[in-house]
Amino acid sequence: MSSEKPILHSYFRSSCSWRVRTCLNWKEIDYEYCPVNLLERAQKKEEYSETNPKVVPALKTDGILLSQSVAILEYLEETQPEKPLLPKDPYKRALVRSIVQAIASDIQPLIQPLHYIKSLQYLESIGGNKNEYIIYCITHGFEGIERQLANTSGKYCVGDEVTLADVCLLPQVYDTNRFGIDMTKFPLIQRITNDLSELDAFKKGHPQNQIDCPAEEKNKIS
Amino acid sequence: MSSEKPILHSYFRSSCSWRVRTCLNWKEIDYEYCPVNLLERAQKKEEYSETNPKVVPALKTDGILLSQSVAILEYLEETQPEKPLLPKDPYKRALVRSIVQAIASDIQPLIQPLHYIKSLQYLESIGGNKNEYIIYCITHGFEGIERQLANTSGKYCVGDEVTLADVCLLPQVYDTNRFGIDMTKFPLIQRITNDLSELDAFKKGHPQNQIDCPAEEKNKIS
Repeated sequence: MSSEKPILHSYFRSSCSWRVRTCLNWKEIDYEYCPVNLLERAQKKEEYSETNPKVVPALKTDGILLSQSVAILEYLEETQPEKPLLPKDPYKRALVRSIVQAIASDIQPLIQPLHYIKSLQYLESIGGNKNEYIIYCITHGFEGIERQLANTSGKYCVGDEVTLADVCLLPQVYDTNRFGIDMTKFPLIQRITNDLSELDAFKKGHPQNQIDCPAEEKNKIS
Repeated sequence: MSSEKPILHSYFRSSCSWRVRTCLNWKEIDYEYCPVNLLERAQKKEEYSETNPKVVPALKTDGILLSQSVAILEYLEETQPEKPLLPKDPYKRALVRSIVQAIASDIQPLIQPLHYIKSLQYLESIGGNKNEYIIYCITHGFEGIERQLANTSGKYCVGDEVTLADVCLLPQVYDTNRFGIDMTKFPLIQRITNDLSELDAFKKGHPQNQIDCPAEEKNKIS
């Protein structure tokens, strides 16, 4: 990594941004936080450019701009292997990535801000109940992850070390809390996220600890 | 990889299964094809087990069972590095993974069979137009990928070598063809998928060349 400080384009609420914040914190990489207000941007229909990326998170580092949180996590793991977030064993790596994908591909896309703003607006425009739909999708996804964890978990998602699976899990559970999911159905997810939420890298990455979190939001989202 | 032949649980129509078929073909890994009829399984509400996995694709190899197509692709790349599908340079790897995720997380989840069968049923139950919704989501996703390709593509998605981005792109374009998307708006995606569809590994992985593709479907999906 070059001596220039990485810049993270982030939105405090974005669970994908939280993944990258946690990874940077875990690896003790000092970075500059560049807030992007997704809601305002969508409303203003702003044009996007390299310095004003279309999406969050986006990481400017080593003179390049990276997008897609999972691709950024893998890049950081490859270029900053100290304090690893992937096990060495290929099978265990696959277990971690399988949980990462179950979250990143099977749950998060259905409730991410983009879909709030656009796709789920469509659902509402035809009289659908957005919350009912989201709760259905999350519950179905969490059932799958709870089954995976029954085979893979130790103290954390895969064994006893923190991995990229954990980096993705906590923000997802947090993001779903506001929909009133009954988490007692998912004891492993609940136990692991409780433990993760005590770790500094995750705490520091929490939405309420970001500079773009409005004061009036801090109590609501703690 | 052990001497035992890998077993791929696959459904001919599944674009995620096609990703893994292409990767196995590209790396010239001989495998046994185990067909899973997703529609029948969902209708029968069959129970799932390790020998009868809940999802496709699932790959039994080296004595273990792997799920999630992207995790399987990464595992195969790590354990069978010959005929690589990721560049060596970390930045180029990130570009590849960024396109992989744009497909796997931002487009495919919205039109995958699971959501057809369940979530999109919800949409229809309240009078929504499933096709209209899907076309909206795919078009939005392809616009993003076309922009990425403008910066990254050579002969293929990232430079002149076939990568995991291509392995994911062709099945996605194929999967969207039936919705009548106007592909002239995406000239790079169209040009690259035309070239990919001429390559043996992709052709061999095509739905119509799978043993579970019914004869009457072969003409429809060519």
